[in-house]
Amino acid sequence: MPVERFLAAAAGVVGNDHVIGDPAGLAPFARLMLPVPEEEHAPVGVVSPRTVEEVQALLRLAGEHKVPLWPTSTGRNFGYGTSAAATKGQVVLDLRRMNRILDVDPVLCTALVEPGVTYKQLQDHLRAEKLPLWIDFPAPGPLVSPIGNTLERGGGLTPYGDHFANSCGYEVVLADGTVLRTGMGGVKNTTSWQAFRYGYGPFLDGIFTQSNFGVVTKMGLWLMPAPETHRTGMAVWPEWGDMAKLIDAMRPLRLDGTIGNFGVLFDSTLALTASMKRADLYAGPGAVPLDLSIKTAKSKGLGAWHYLYTVYGRADRVAADWKAIERAVVASGGTVIPDVPDPMSVGELTLQAFSLLNWVGGHGLAWFSPVTPMRGADAARQMEIARAVMDRHGVDFMTGMTLNGREGLNVMPMVFDRSDAESTARHRACFDALIDAFAAAGYGFYRTGIGFMDKVAAVHGTAQIDVNRRIKRALDPGGIIAPGKSGIRI
Amino acid sequence: MPVERFLAAAAGVVGNDHVIGDPAGLAPFARLMLPVPEEEHAPVGVVSPRTVEEVQALLRLAGEHKVPLWPTSTGRNFGYGTSAAATKGQVVLDLRRMNRILDVDPVLCTALVEPGVTYKQLQDHLRAEKLPLWIDFPAPGPLVSPIGNTLERGGGLTPYGDHFANSCGYEVVLADGTVLRTGMGGVKNTTSWQAFRYGYGPFLDGIFTQSNFGVVTKMGLWLMPAPETHRTGMAVWPEWGDMAKLIDAMRPLRLDGTIGNFGVLFDSTLALTASMKRADLYAGPGAVPLDLSIKTAKSKGLGAWHYLYTVYGRADRVAADWKAIERAVVASGGTVIPDVPDPMSVGELTLQAFSLLNWVGGHGLAWFSPVTPMRGADAARQMEIARAVMDRHGVDFMTGMTLNGREGLNVMPMVFDRSDAESTARHRACFDALIDAFAAAGYGFYRTGIGFMDKVAAVHGTAQIDVNRRIKRALDPGGIIAPGKSGIRI
Repeated sequence: MPVERFLAAAAGVVGNDHVIGDPAGLAPFARLMLPVPEEEHAPVGVVSPRTVEEVQALLRLAGEHKVPLWPTSTGRNFGYGTSAAATKGQVVLDLRRMNRILDVDPVLCTALVEPGVTYKQLQDHLRAEKLPLWIDFPAPGPLVSPIGNTLERGGGLTPYGDHFANSCGYEVVLADGTVLRTGMGGVKNTTSWQAFRYGYGPFLDGIFTQSNFGVVTKMGLWLMPAPETHRTGMAVWPEWGDMAKLIDAMRPLRLDGTIGNFGVLFDSTLALTASMKRADLYAGPGAVPLDLSIKTAKSKGLGAWHYLYTVYGRADRVAADWKAIERAVVASGGTVIPDVPDPMSVGELTLQAFSLLNWVGGHGLAWFSPVTPMRGADAARQMEIARAVMDRHGVDFMTGMTLNGREGLNVMPMVFDRSDAESTARHRACFDALIDAFAAAGYGFYRTGIGFMDKVAAVHGTAQIDVNRRIKRALDPGGIIAPGKSGIRI
Repeated sequence: MPVERFLAAAAGVVGNDHVIGDPAGLAPFARLMLPVPEEEHAPVGVVSPRTVEEVQALLRLAGEHKVPLWPTSTGRNFGYGTSAAATKGQVVLDLRRMNRILDVDPVLCTALVEPGVTYKQLQDHLRAEKLPLWIDFPAPGPLVSPIGNTLERGGGLTPYGDHFANSCGYEVVLADGTVLRTGMGGVKNTTSWQAFRYGYGPFLDGIFTQSNFGVVTKMGLWLMPAPETHRTGMAVWPEWGDMAKLIDAMRPLRLDGTIGNFGVLFDSTLALTASMKRADLYAGPGAVPLDLSIKTAKSKGLGAWHYLYTVYGRADRVAADWKAIERAVVASGGTVIPDVPDPMSVGELTLQAFSLLNWVGGHGLAWFSPVTPMRGADAARQMEIARAVMDRHGVDFMTGMTLNGREGLNVMPMVFDRSDAESTARHRACFDALIDAFAAAGYGFYRTGIGFMDKVAAVHGTAQIDVNRRIKRALDPGGIIAPGKSGIRI
């Protein structure tokens, strides 16, 4: 078997302790939260290098043995595929042993890390060094890695919430072992690898995100200087129908920078997951009824829509921005709850977003993640489309949408009991139907999980699939790295 | 001759009036400001399509006839190559007839334009429609096009000064005629092409900048909502040796957004070009002496270094930011001249930056454009390196450096009389020596002109050259589009 021969050869590179080929050892890597069958995505091996040279050697061996490698950083990717691969039969290239913080520059506020470095590890380092620098964390912050999250184009809630935009300088190992340093990283004794993203000639970093063109082994990221002060508010609008006007009221404040962070807008049911379980709310058939959700939220001082925003900076500026936002919220029919604690928006690690997994239990989670233009009518229409499809499938509607000036990432968690085959199948069918419904309305996607990648890639059109394939063939002619990732194959 | 056969066939596509093959007609397209020989870069024809279909047809014909096409938008690119090509023997694919403004969205503050649309044309349109939207202009703003400037990764001085970062959604015609719409542009009946850059899967836009992988025929760009108010100041520091401390004083204000725009930092000689000619200042041998330049600047109320910055927004915020900046300038030994007119930083078209061409006359201009990390010591070191090399070549030192939080684009104009062969040769030698000196110190480049592209690409390393070539072969296997651009060939 090619896989067994590959794993035996790989043991010669990384040592026996860092190769897994037995079913018991592989089981955790096959585990899924998504509503798709584990056997369609199960890895057949795991190899864990510690150095760039070992990554190069493993890629060469994989090419020789024609065994596909699925790179992971810490292998979390909760609700998008965990450690499992787009297709079955791949060997996980597990990079968590490459976990060195190579540089932190307190002047330029940058870091250079390896794939296995976690956000927690980086924060611990900054605190040990007493550096006044903030990290922007994604929702599973403590557990996951800047490289893994950034390459998926994940985000957080501070002004640095667009992780790709705040990454600077990659080291990428290509399938043939070529080591590429992007941007200013190719300059001998470079002074500027983490200072300037674009470099000279084509700006390449973007093609290594949500793709399978290479294995990223180092990445620079930008850190936020700790602000003098900050203040978080939660705007609450009472009715489902308030969506269009709230979006139109908040957009100008995002566009002009009054609201500088990627605040999150969430509905009544997602708000309730923080303090209750589904069974305590509703025991009837089908999805949680909208009016029950909103009525219950109101009884807790909440509403139909909630927007957590934070202002940062000098005290005089924070005070001025705070007032401008409050005026706009009130003018649009909302109220402001001041000084709400929101760890993620002030650079504090938390897993509180994952309290939503307690909603039903059973660890089923899939993020449905369309992009909405930041027009009130579009955002409202997306909510109507989603809720109609979900209602039809008996799926609870929830969203946590991060608002930017021109787009919102409308990230909807679908939470279900994965041990319940009927519910799992129903959520899968719902996910498929949602893709169809959003595509039919002219909406595309920010990100998707394994099992849905081909379908989402198709929504973005054949020309993109074709160009991605040409680049794939140019950089990985054997198709060794992560076939099927984002729908890309040779 | 293949070129003549190609031009004859091209006339069948675009009409005889839109093909140039005669020496008199070609002469303007060969004209250079750079200190390199025109005959090494002279085009052998010009074809001017009006539609995407004509671009597709011309690319197919070029492939059949093996004639390379050098795309230009308006063909300005002053001081970087004008309309001329990286190598001789190319046919200019002149896109200025494709000049439709396809969409302006006053809600999301976006536009969609063709390559021949100029900044002036777009501004006239916004004014005619009375839309309160600002455009960020590059220095030659009125004459040039958003697509041309953005694809070179040019910049301006407002908060939207990073033109690539504020472009969103491209249409690209590949060498084989494939039409790619990037990001959300591949979604049928897309609602979000100009709203969200990244799309799904690899983010491709960057590879079409400073490259030759395709012909961009449409581009989205983001416009700045006109702020409630704004205020421009000029900080002045008296001595050459103030560079390190001024950079270290301004960086934190750029990093935390107090200074939100890409303000420009310039030296005493560049300041003097606005009001005098070189001959009125200095008639001796060699470069203008530094002490003479600074002394003369001081006599006019200027100094060794000047930084034009602007704050924007609500009046309360502008007032607060203004004071914070003034405090930092004074603390670092500078003074603030308030309310200085600076059209470019408030969205007004101007060509005043090009007054520097009057410095000596003779229309020689080359921009030497290294990137400095925003550390005081690095910026000071770059100035020392540049001045030493320039002094050795009898070249006047000037810089206009736009300051970002982590990097500065240290754009140094070399102005000379192109009709003077000795001076032209000396400036060319100086440019080459500057590349060597900066590369030896670990600095790379933001951009460069034809004639220096291979050398600058080499500074950024063989891995980048290799990867760029692989992508080039994948997307343009015949090497039809702009061979030599950014050092990229098949």
